[in-house]
Order: sequence, then structure tokens, then C-alpha cells
Amino acid sequence: MTDTRTGAIVRSRLEDARRASRALALATGSQREAALEAIAVAIESDVEGILSANERDIVRGRENGLAPGLLDRLRLDENRIAALAESVRHIAALTDPVGQVVRGSRLENGVRIEQVRVPFGVVGAIYEARPNVTVDIAALALRSGNAVVLRGGSAAIESNTRLTEVLRRALSAAGLPAHVIQSIDDFGREGATELMRARGLVDVLIPRGSASLINTVVSESTVPVIETGAGVVHVYVDADADAATAASIVVNAKAQRPSVCNAAETVLVHRDAAERVLPALLEKLRSAGVTVRGDDEARAYSPAIEPAAADEWSTEHLDLTLGMRIVDSLDDALEHIAMYSTHHTESIVTNSVRNSERFLAEVDSAVVMVNASTRFTDGGVFGFGAEVGISTQKLHARGPMGLTELTSTKWLVRGDGQVRG
Amino acid sequence: MTDTRTGAIVRSRLEDARRASRALALATGSQREAALEAIAVAIESDVEGILSANERDIVRGRENGLAPGLLDRLRLDENRIAALAESVRHIAALTDPVGQVVRGSRLENGVRIEQVRVPFGVVGAIYEARPNVTVDIAALALRSGNAVVLRGGSAAIESNTRLTEVLRRALSAAGLPAHVIQSIDDFGREGATELMRARGLVDVLIPRGSASLINTVVSESTVPVIETGAGVVHVYVDADADAATAASIVVNAKAQRPSVCNAAETVLVHRDAAERVLPALLEKLRSAGVTVRGDDEARAYSPAIEPAAADEWSTEHLDLTLGMRIVDSLDDALEHIAMYSTHHTESIVTNSVRNSERFLAEVDSAVVMVNASTRFTDGGVFGFGAEVGISTQKLHARGPMGLTELTSTKWLVRGDGQVRG
Repeated sequence: MTDTRTGAIVRSRLEDARRASRALALATGSQREAALEAIAVAIESDVEGILSANERDIVRGRENGLAPGLLDRLRLDENRIAALAESVRHIAALTDPVGQVVRGSRLENGVRIEQVRVPFGVVGAIYEARPNVTVDIAALALRSGNAVVLRGGSAAIESNTRLTEVLRRALSAAGLPAHVIQSIDDFGREGATELMRARGLVDVLIPRGSASLINTVVSESTVPVIETGAGVVHVYVDADADAATAASIVVNAKAQRPSVCNAAETVLVHRDAAERVLPALLEKLRSAGVTVRGDDEARAYSPAIEPAAADEWSTEHLDLTLGMRIVDSLDDALEHIAMYSTHHTESIVTNSVRNSERFLAEVDSAVVMVNASTRFTDGGVFGFGAEVGISTQKLHARGPMGLTELTSTKWLVRGDGQVRG
Repeated sequence: MTDTRTGAIVRSRLEDARRASRALALATGSQREAALEAIAVAIESDVEGILSANERDIVRGRENGLAPGLLDRLRLDENRIAALAESVRHIAALTDPVGQVVRGSRLENGVRIEQVRVPFGVVGAIYEARPNVTVDIAALALRSGNAVVLRGGSAAIESNTRLTEVLRRALSAAGLPAHVIQSIDDFGREGATELMRARGLVDVLIPRGSASLINTVVSESTVPVIETGAGVVHVYVDADADAATAASIVVNAKAQRPSVCNAAETVLVHRDAAERVLPALLEKLRSAGVTVRGDDEARAYSPAIEPAAADEWSTEHLDLTLGMRIVDSLDDALEHIAMYSTHHTESIVTNSVRNSERFLAEVDSAVVMVNASTRFTDGGVFGFGAEVGISTQKLHARGPMGLTELTSTKWLVRGDGQVRG
């Protein structure tokens, strides 16, 4: 960390968080659950204050010409605040991961060893101007026994400051140290840089947001990062795929909720399936409002298919645009996926056992599917109760992350005087 | 990665490793086992070539004034080479972690999800001038289905080059791509820098060696790092500790093998135990050849105790030197440990259930012990069969790392046309 005045203040907040994390680690699961309930009540009791802080952000955002989509993500209303409190209660009700025994054994010399889940300690979060993420991350951290240092987008600073105050007061009232939740929003970019360099004070950093935000954190941080990533997600329609199944999966994967990372961006169609599969598929995509952009061969099947953009295959559209490419073979599809995938989720539609097993084995992504919509890659769907994010890296967590992924482990060793011979 | 000629060559080797890793991931466990056996045989068949390469390193090392300890670590002889081949056979015989099912379930809609262990892909290793690490890391990587990029200390370049050639030829002969094992020793520091920046080509980087080497890798690398760390390891002798148990554990923890990271560096003695425990403890330490350096209060118990150095409490001696401090209470001991521990291993010697449970709960280290020697922190002792290193970080792996810790996971999802509602 740097030697500036900002550096010193940020460092002292992180040290406060570190000390608070030690106290929090000793709190029982039910104390943390009670604190979360207190936070939900506190949010519900401060609707007016939160709305008025949020309104100041909205006004400033409008003045600064913030895009309508970003303004919408920034905006809170009574319903959204009620949903925040509900989400906190939902997280409070989840199974406590802390103290779970992962494995253990008794060595021949009688020493017992046991690996148990423990909180990381201090979790840092860097995210964009979405006040709901402030509450969400703080609640997930608290449920898993971690202190949290928040750094939200500057456009949400008034909302985040108010929410952080509400959360910290509720923590104190519930008998836990307020320093368990820290914000460094007031230090802008410099604060974020300090957070990324705070190795030893912060145990893990979670960036949530755009690909460029995540890339910045990954390349600048000396604190270990869990990368929750962009999804250039593929569906491959194999030679013998059932036409109705293919249409249903591709349309669901693209259009059921196009703005999220598990939505499909590219469909690869085996040449031998194209004539059989494409008419119904294209018709269903059209009625769902999807614009299809294809390579030359795909475009030969329908005048409605627009030409693929130069960077089509590496683009995460996050809207109702779908790239389409005709491939010669499963190998061709695997090659395309190896080249362009962001290793999030890919699905094959096929009736061939051999091809489905090859696809499962050879695609190097967090989630690999056969005959299912890529929209299933989700912590809620997988039964985790909550989702911290979807990890596209291979270290520590891969795919949907639940509370368990916010913990580390520690080995407890109990002897009665044994020494090594 | 940079745009230099070195950058281009290193990148092309990493790309070769990446492609080879995809082929390796499809090899069966028994193919990888057979390749390891072929490597063991190849090492045994090239004793002369390996010894002559090693001799050139030793001569150059002597000319360059390499310290005797480093020369000894660098030196190979017939016995050591035989031990290398034996170690490869031992690793070949370990249970294959690839394909193990971690968890799974059937969702209500009939979709089956299953989390299985998969290789990382490409593992990078940066280490010092110890030829045995070259063979050890390559064998562990291969057993866990990973390609490996090696960067050993320049003082061992002749030995490492020869060993890498032997390993690669054996791989080819066994029908696996030689590119599964890559070395970038010929590019010195610039090569290491390229490796640390090769995010996307290398999945995880493991530094093995001194604290300064590890710190460099941690701060310069954009590739995720597993930190295997230094051990400033503590034994705390509680107020009511049994004197014989305390002496036996402290002496074993310090002196049984002082040069390794799980050896104790500091003993903290509760004031109420000092008079009872110290005479026998100091006598046993003396006969084991241990030099004790203490704070003023400790020195009052024996003229043989030397004064503690200014940086005594943060020093990893790795020799027969032990720091000793008298503390007022368990809280005092916990405070000292929180301040100076490198979060590797700490042990309490006590008869108090309450204090042992507090110690286990409050000490934030990879391994926390009650009435046992810190020397037990070891992959072999824990039953892992092999040890990749001892992780002192909290992400992915903590404590002794076995083959399992060299794998990631992937979710396999099997449906029959399900889409999200």
C-alpha cells in the first residue's frame, strides 16, 4: 500500500476490519443470523432515508448523462428496498458453512486430524453502481463469518453510504462490531487501488461487474482474486439433434433473460442438421425478438440472418442478438469453443452418447451441459440458496459460488503428546 | 506478455503446453501411470548423462562462490538419482484424482448435476536451484493430468536441461505429447517474467523456495498463485502444561529437522509454568544442540539463554536457534501469534480443555494443534501420499497440499431437453 494520506486512512479501515473479523469468527452462527435479521429490520425502517440518498444519486446521474440502463440499475424504490430486506432474510436462513467438517482421520500414532470450514477473514468487493450489491455482498459475507470491505461505483455513493450506515448501526445494536462492514467509497479510484494492494489485510477480493472492471482487478491486485466472469456462452446443435429440442434450448438459452452471463451468445449448427433444424429454430428466435447474425453459410438458409460482425464470436451481447455459425463436425465446434469461449457454460444438443461424452470431457468450461439450457448455470438452480457470483477461474471455486465458496479451511490437530520419530 | 523475441518464444512454448494439456486431459489414469514408470526407467538409464550435466553446474557454482548449503542442494549423486526415480514410482502409484465426483444431485426438473475433479490444465512452477524439484513437480503435475512449465534456478540449468530432455523423451516413448513438460530455463529472469504474466495460458503458478522468491511471484504474477510459505511456527506452553510433554514437543518441533518450514521458531511460555517447565526443557534443548534466545524475563531463568535479536520474533531461523518469550496469559500468547505468525502451524501444550478449544478457534493458521509436535504438518503424515507444498494462503488450498490440490473441478449437467421457466 502507498504512503499517502489516503493510504493511511484506508489501511486503518482495513485494520479495523481485520480486528473485527477476529471477533466475528468467534460469534456463533445464530448470533450472525440475528444480526442479519436486525439488518433486514433496519433497512425496512429507513426506507425514506435510503430513498432520499438514492434520489440524490439519480439526479446527479441524470446530470452526468448516465445511460438509462445504468440509471435503472442504480434506482431504488419501495419495492426494491423491500426486496433487499427479503434477500437479507433469505441469506440469514441459509445453512451456516462455518465449522463444517470437510474430512478427517486418526493417524496411526493416535493423533486426530480434522479439516474444518472457517471464514476467509476479510473479503473485499469491488463493483459497479448497484446499491443492491452493497447489501447482498455484506449479507453473504456476514452469513459466512467474514468482515467485508466494500468499494461500489461512484455514481451510487450516496445510496451506498446510507446503506452502509444502516447496516453498521444494525450490527452494533445486534452486539457485533460495526467494523465488520467497511466502505472505502469516499476514496474513489485511489481507495480501490489501496484495496487491491492490501495483501495480508484482505484475504480475497471479488470483483463484480463488467469484463473491464474484472480485468483491471485481476491485473492490478496482489490480493488473491476470485474472477467472476463474462460469458460468451455456446450452444452446439449436433448432426442428429432433435429439431424441437434444439429450438427450445437455443431460444431459452438466448432469450429467457438475455442480460445475464449464462445467456447464450453463439449457436453452432452442424451442417447435416441445418436444413432439418433451422426453419423452426429461426422462426422461434424471430418470435422471441432475437436478431440472428450469421456466417455466409448460415445466411444462405434465411434472408433474415444478418451478417456476423467482425468480432461476432468473441462478443458478449447481453441483449437479443445471437451469433450463428455452421460447422462441419463436432471437432470443428470444439475448436471454435476452445478459441472463443470464456469458459463459463457450453451446451450440446445431441442424441449421440459418444458425442455428448466427448463434449463433456473436452470442453474446458466451468459448466458443460448436454440437452439442457445454459440458463441453468445458477447458484439458486444448483441448490446453493444464494449466489456470490459465477467463477470462471479454476482456483478455489469454479462455476456458481455459494456461501461455501466464501470460506477457507483450517486443519485442527489433537494429540496427547505425540512427537515425530 | 511482452512483445520481445523472448516473449514470442516463451509464448509459443506455453501454447504448446496448452495444446498438450488438452491431449493429456483425455489420456486415462493408467496411461499417465505408465508414462511415469517410463520416466523412472529413463532416469535410471541416464545416470551418467545426468551426473555429467550436474557436475558442470557444480563446477560453475564453485567458481561463482555458491554457498556450501546451496551446492549441497544442487548436487546429484547415484543415490540421489535412484531416489528421484523411486519418488516418481511412488507418485505413479498414488490414487488418480482426475474424474473423482465431489458432489452431485438431481434437480426437481430431472436435470442431473455433478461436480467432478479435472486437471487445472497448465501448471507453472518457479523454484530454486534444486534438480530434484524439477522431477518432483513434473511427476506430480503428470499424475494429476496437468501440463507443466518449469522455471528452475539458473545455477541448476545444465542439470535441469538434461532432466527435462530425459523426461520429455520418456513421455514421447510412452505415447504422450512431449510438450506436456516445458522448460523456460534458457530465458533467465525475462522468461520467468513472461511466465508470471501468462494469464489465460497458464492456470496456476506455484513458487517453491525462499520467502523472497515467493514474494516476487506473488506481487508480479497476474496468473493465480498458490503461495507455499515460510513458517514462523510457534509452540505455546500453557500455565498447567505437563513439563515432560512440553519438553518433548518443543524439542521435537525445533530440533528433529530444523531446516524445514514446520520446525518451531518461537516458544511462548506462560509465566506460571516457567519455573516448573523450564529446567527440563532447557536441558533437553541444550543436549539437542539448540541455542535459545530469550526476552529479559526468560533470560532470568538461565544464563545459557542469549538475548533475543531485534527481529527475533519474525525470523524463520531454519537452524538450531529458538526464540523464547515469557507471556502473562493465553491472551498474550494469542496476541503474539497474531502479530508474528506466518499462518503456517502453531501448537499449544495444555491440560485445559477450555484453553485448547480457544487456541484451536482463535489461531488463524493453516494447521492448529493441541499437544502435538508442529513437525506433523506434512502431506505424507496427513496421508496424502505426496506433498506439493504447504499452502499458507486461504484460497483453494490451505496447509499440506496433495494431488487433489493440483486439480480444479467442472460441473457436468445432463438433461433431456429441459429449459428454464
